[in-house]
Amino acid sequence: MGLFTKDIKDMDDLFVHQLKDIYYAENRIVATLPKMIEKATTPGLKQGFMTHLTETKNQIQRLDQVFDLHGVSPESVKCPAIDGIIKEADEVAAEIDDKKVLDAALIAAAQAVEHYEITRYGTLIAWAKELGADECVDLLEQTLEEERATDQKLTMLAESQVNSAAA
Amino acid sequence: MGLFTKDIKDMDDLFVHQLKDIYYAENRIVATLPKMIEKATTPGLKQGFMTHLTETKNQIQRLDQVFDLHGVSPESVKCPAIDGIIKEADEVAAEIDDKKVLDAALIAAAQAVEHYEITRYGTLIAWAKELGADECVDLLEQTLEEERATDQKLTMLAESQVNSAAA
Repeated sequence: MGLFTKDIKDMDDLFVHQLKDIYYAENRIVATLPKMIEKATTPGLKQGFMTHLTETKNQIQRLDQVFDLHGVSPESVKCPAIDGIIKEADEVAAEIDDKKVLDAALIAAAQAVEHYEITRYGTLIAWAKELGADECVDLLEQTLEEERATDQKLTMLAESQVNSAAA
Repeated sequence: MGLFTKDIKDMDDLFVHQLKDIYYAENRIVATLPKMIEKATTPGLKQGFMTHLTETKNQIQRLDQVFDLHGVSPESVKCPAIDGIIKEADEVAAEIDDKKVLDAALIAAAQAVEHYEITRYGTLIAWAKELGADECVDLLEQTLEEERATDQKLTMLAESQVNSAAA
């Protein structure tokens, strides 16, 4: 970030900045998921988080490829949005003793993370299309589909088991 | 938040906490939208943000009703997630000089806000259903539909005009 200059000069800079932002976010998610796995008690939720951890590591590799295709080296920029979402999840979890209520809160937190990713990948895909970066579009779309599927699985788990157990 | 006690004891507490969180978020959005209106140059975007400001004020009144129906007084809790999303939007905007690129970034920021609201209202609706708070469900669903529609309008605006002008 420039102190005296404005670093985002065009759409390409904006795309690369957003890539670095989601790269930071994905890496923070990989660091956070083990704690969520530990906290979760509903077996399907614990398993779901474990599956998503593997998936997220794969999504980071896909981002490495996107950086490579775009001719820039993989790098992070601090992403206050994901930091805030994770901070909020930690604060809420710290206020809950009941394991069933905690599972409901963990699902809500995970869905906030998924929605952050859904909006960012959606934006990245739209920008990559404008920039004619078709190979990047394909890779980013694979991840977007995974994030949407994860969000839907969490909704199903919440509505079929976790919320009624907590209520 | 309790220093020595855990304040969220059951699903009802969790629901009320999340209500206070989104109440804080909606109020921050009302405070932030005028700055986004000022920064935007594409007429459709400026107008869209103005419409959404009116809509958001109405959504706050709807939250007042939800609090009232649920027998608690309207109150905010600090929401690090929306603070982070807005902080990130400000930081990115500060790096951009080109007005067309800025409009593309403003849409991305607004969609990150919308997705935060979509996930939170989705969760609130699911929890309100479990708690049998049917009147609250109806009100929250009205807002969720508005947030989804706003997100779709932003996507259309980005893809039909703003992104190609910026690229």
